[in-house]
Amino acid sequence: MAMLFASSVDDPAAWKAALAVHAPALEVRVWPDVGRAEDIDTALVWRPPPGMLAGLPGLRAIFSLGAGVDHVFADESLPDAPVVRLVDPALTRQMAEYAVLATLWRHRRMGAYRAFQARAEWRQLPASETAARRVGIMGLGEIGRACAEALSRLGFPVAGWRRSAGAVPGIACFHGADGLGPFLARSDILVCALPLTRETRNILDADLFARLPRGAYVVNAARGGCQDEEALLAAVDSGRLSGAWLDVCRTEPPPPSSPLWRHPRIVLTPHVAGQVLPETAAPGVAENLRRLRAGLPLRDVVDPARGY
Amino acid sequence: MAMLFASSVDDPAAWKAALAVHAPALEVRVWPDVGRAEDIDTALVWRPPPGMLAGLPGLRAIFSLGAGVDHVFADESLPDAPVVRLVDPALTRQMAEYAVLATLWRHRRMGAYRAFQARAEWRQLPASETAARRVGIMGLGEIGRACAEALSRLGFPVAGWRRSAGAVPGIACFHGADGLGPFLARSDILVCALPLTRETRNILDADLFARLPRGAYVVNAARGGCQDEEALLAAVDSGRLSGAWLDVCRTEPPPPSSPLWRHPRIVLTPHVAGQVLPETAAPGVAENLRRLRAGLPLRDVVDPARGY
Repeated sequence: MAMLFASSVDDPAAWKAALAVHAPALEVRVWPDVGRAEDIDTALVWRPPPGMLAGLPGLRAIFSLGAGVDHVFADESLPDAPVVRLVDPALTRQMAEYAVLATLWRHRRMGAYRAFQARAEWRQLPASETAARRVGIMGLGEIGRACAEALSRLGFPVAGWRRSAGAVPGIACFHGADGLGPFLARSDILVCALPLTRETRNILDADLFARLPRGAYVVNAARGGCQDEEALLAAVDSGRLSGAWLDVCRTEPPPPSSPLWRHPRIVLTPHVAGQVLPETAAPGVAENLRRLRAGLPLRDVVDPARGY
Repeated sequence: MAMLFASSVDDPAAWKAALAVHAPALEVRVWPDVGRAEDIDTALVWRPPPGMLAGLPGLRAIFSLGAGVDHVFADESLPDAPVVRLVDPALTRQMAEYAVLATLWRHRRMGAYRAFQARAEWRQLPASETAARRVGIMGLGEIGRACAEALSRLGFPVAGWRRSAGAVPGIACFHGADGLGPFLARSDILVCALPLTRETRNILDADLFARLPRGAYVVNAARGGCQDEEALLAAVDSGRLSGAWLDVCRTEPPPPSSPLWRHPRIVLTPHVAGQVLPETAAPGVAENLRRLRAGLPLRDVVDPARGY
């Protein structure tokens, strides 16, 4: 049996090398060189070409090459095999680092200081106490919890919001539609770590921005589909938001004409908040392969109804 | 007895208000309105005008308005009264935040990503594992230790270097002239948190940069006097250093002609890594005033021979 690798952004050679270490018996084929389709029982994919997976009759598991799985469910002909998200402590750590970086950038007013430097102006702005800068994390999965914990350890008062009730030690937890308003009202910096699902599509919209404190800052390290970009730009331009730090966009890359590129109060990075490294991610994939071969339940299987 | 407040950068009204809360009986006079000089038994100062303190015959303690005291010892007619550095947990936290921000900026290659954004280029660079980015902290006083601990908690392998031997839990400690070479050789990102003394003046020089790994990054959140700016600029231009993040300069502000302002690989902030907030710093000053009045030993007194 073989694994089919398909991604336009991940390096097949690096993945083959990493899997050779952790799953030495595994044969890896790289799309579009499928060979005999019947041989394939697993797929390791990022944005698989629609229909590709449906053409694999023996498919028993679909492994995502990212923490999110929306790119897999985007395939309308997805076969009935378990979809497994990628869980990698190194990836989770990267995401937490990114949230800390974006939060500190706003907290320490680096947008203003970089502009001052560019015009050779030496000007100190008033400092704010860390304890007075309230951070809100939307989404308390593996990644959201790591972001919340890292920011809390730095002294920020951190709250989290999730779909359904659940506690995280040291983090004020809000949940559901009723909890969203009070959560937003106390979030000076909002970090989105949500999966992209039917329920979270466009969740960062004008209505949500209006419920944040005036001058709040928005960090989206999740998915571009979560943000209404026109509303975001309007909120930054009106001063409703003081700015935004985005790792994701509705269209990646955004068209050259997009105002996201050159807006002075928007930091844009090219979907690098969490970059999957084969050497750290391969052990988790290999472990699930062993479980599959041994007939044990897989880890990190997504609930298709929830979409995460 | 009264306290004389003298600073060109700190707000006397805010300090009076904060001290009124924590030392309600204290009379505070603001330079140059000294009144009867004999009434003054303490001074709270930032860069005191040379000779000012020598003109106070009843002076019993000099409180620094910053964590460093080099600005006090710069007065060649300094009277023989204990010099007390400012220790404030909120200030220490700010310094650690700043070190984390600068380190993550370099670690996550934000200089390159900001340049990509400016030219509307969507380009992912290879990620590095946190565990492979070695950070070195020069100076393991209150502030250096806080920087080391915050960076270590994020997963960076952190080492520290100090004048004399001493352990910090979880941090690899090097010391003295013999320890400097091995410490530098393993520091991909070097954070300077040293006091400015005779021994540390110009310590960040061409020889030191040459002992760092090629492409290392230097963060100076301490004092401009610690850095040889010509050598720093030459090291960045030659690629010996990949860049620098400076909160301090030899001359503050640097002259408009200084290359520090517009160098693409230098981030410059206007001495704001640790901004003293009267509301968090006043309790420590008030506590030392109580000890002075009660005849108890003062806390955080500087050793004039060491200069810190």
